[in-house]
Amino acid sequence: MILTVTLNAALDLTYRVPRLRPHATHRVTHVAERPGGKGLNVARVLAALGHDTVVTGFAGGPTGTTLRRLLADGSRPGTLTDELVTITGPTRRTIGVVDESTGESTQLNEPGPEVTSEQWTSFCERYARLLRGARAVALCGSLPPGVPVGAYAQLVREAHAARVPVLLDTSGEPLRRGLAARPDLVKPNTTELAALTGSTDPLRAASDTRRRGARAVAATLGPDGILALTPDGTWRAAPPRRIPGNPTGAGDSATAALLSGWLEGLPWPDRLARAVALSAATVRAPVAGEFDREAYEELLPQVKVTEA
Amino acid sequence: MILTVTLNAALDLTYRVPRLRPHATHRVTHVAERPGGKGLNVARVLAALGHDTVVTGFAGGPTGTTLRRLLADGSRPGTLTDELVTITGPTRRTIGVVDESTGESTQLNEPGPEVTSEQWTSFCERYARLLRGARAVALCGSLPPGVPVGAYAQLVREAHAARVPVLLDTSGEPLRRGLAARPDLVKPNTTELAALTGSTDPLRAASDTRRRGARAVAATLGPDGILALTPDGTWRAAPPRRIPGNPTGAGDSATAALLSGWLEGLPWPDRLARAVALSAATVRAPVAGEFDREAYEELLPQVKVTEA
Repeated sequence: MILTVTLNAALDLTYRVPRLRPHATHRVTHVAERPGGKGLNVARVLAALGHDTVVTGFAGGPTGTTLRRLLADGSRPGTLTDELVTITGPTRRTIGVVDESTGESTQLNEPGPEVTSEQWTSFCERYARLLRGARAVALCGSLPPGVPVGAYAQLVREAHAARVPVLLDTSGEPLRRGLAARPDLVKPNTTELAALTGSTDPLRAASDTRRRGARAVAATLGPDGILALTPDGTWRAAPPRRIPGNPTGAGDSATAALLSGWLEGLPWPDRLARAVALSAATVRAPVAGEFDREAYEELLPQVKVTEA
Repeated sequence: MILTVTLNAALDLTYRVPRLRPHATHRVTHVAERPGGKGLNVARVLAALGHDTVVTGFAGGPTGTTLRRLLADGSRPGTLTDELVTITGPTRRTIGVVDESTGESTQLNEPGPEVTSEQWTSFCERYARLLRGARAVALCGSLPPGVPVGAYAQLVREAHAARVPVLLDTSGEPLRRGLAARPDLVKPNTTELAALTGSTDPLRAASDTRRRGARAVAATLGPDGILALTPDGTWRAAPPRRIPGNPTGAGDSATAALLSGWLEGLPWPDRLARAVALSAATVRAPVAGEFDREAYEELLPQVKVTEA
């Protein structure tokens, strides 16, 4: 199975309003609830691709109960097993407010519950147990209050000790610290790369990120696709055209595709083509965080991968 | 006991953000959850004033469970009994986003769950039973989807039949229809009055509202206090000075004060003074929907009531 870690899971709400105006009262015309947090998104896409997945991290309170119920919903070719550690603090909500007049989204993210040191210890024990059965692990997203900032460095080291390949997708100080533990792959976007390295040139920034410890870097460039610097070479992969839609979850689909291609032993160019096609198919899907299977099949052979 | 009806109860969330910018991602710095919906606010204030209260309406789903737990929290001189009818649809959330740079609030209100005709019938049976023990009833707030637009007119008529005095605090078509059933008191604000009558002059609009069926009208004028047109006379009541703070729930405190003064047999000028002082003490309280007891005691003798 593939293990994904989501320390700061969220109940994702999407609100549609005719037009967002600061300081006004809005009647929300449509509400959607779904499980949120990068690692949960990655696991749902992997299960939809046919992989058996296990999710861990934290969940608590009434929002945590709703999150777990939504996570269990739906049938997928692969299994999705809930190994989240129950805590007392309520799982945070994240709210995306979509302005129907422009299509643009305004995001409000709760900080997340305070995790105690006992709860962190419980998680570490669960993680160590789950690693024994894992073929790969993805460490995803921000850290909730109370979790040590060096958490990902510790989890990367434990994965290495268990000989499980590890992908890290986070930002800021947790990414900086995590890199020092030498993860097999990191998947930053351009904003995260610039914050980490100070460079807005993706090639320079990704190269610097490898020097900081990542064996491979797959930098997502939004509509421009992916730039990958790996021990086997450097590639750019781009969709055949601009895909309009909702980019929420597109990066998580890229993570799922990279993991899936990795475990199937695909060469890097094929992994990247899969990541770009799956990202674009996620942008095309009507619901944030899901992907349009037909669009995926259609786009996959059209992705251009070039050596850089 | 005093009965309050909240057909569209809400779990009220207050988010604080450093600065609200449309289309940006915000980290919420502080989250507060409280029971929401006008009738629930009125009941909480009445119980804090020492009255025994019963709340009814609808609650459902995980948000409904949280709402009921929060409603049961806290000790008050009066009792607050939960007689909400449980439904399958989840209780709506309302979110107030406070911009810390300006202090201004942006409101996002979910529409509420669809109420079935069976659920509406259950509510009507519960209401009829509760009316038998009620000294007064307050019908408060908007109607959720599925409840007939003439609901308040029906509930006003049933209160009359049971010889229970009835206060109506709603807006739009439910207010227009409710007025035809001749409620004892309505408590519109200036926006609601203007929408009902087409007049922005409060005296003219309140007078028109009485002609439409209300025995008495207590129009809340924001920081300018209250204008009351009653069978006993017409009065204006105003706070001694502008009270800075958060106006959320101030109107509901006015409703609670009017009910409380009514049941104590106070003359209209004393009821109005209580309503203005309690509203102002709510604006002054740090948490929306609660009131500052010291400010209330201090402001009460300072309210100016004049015959208009």
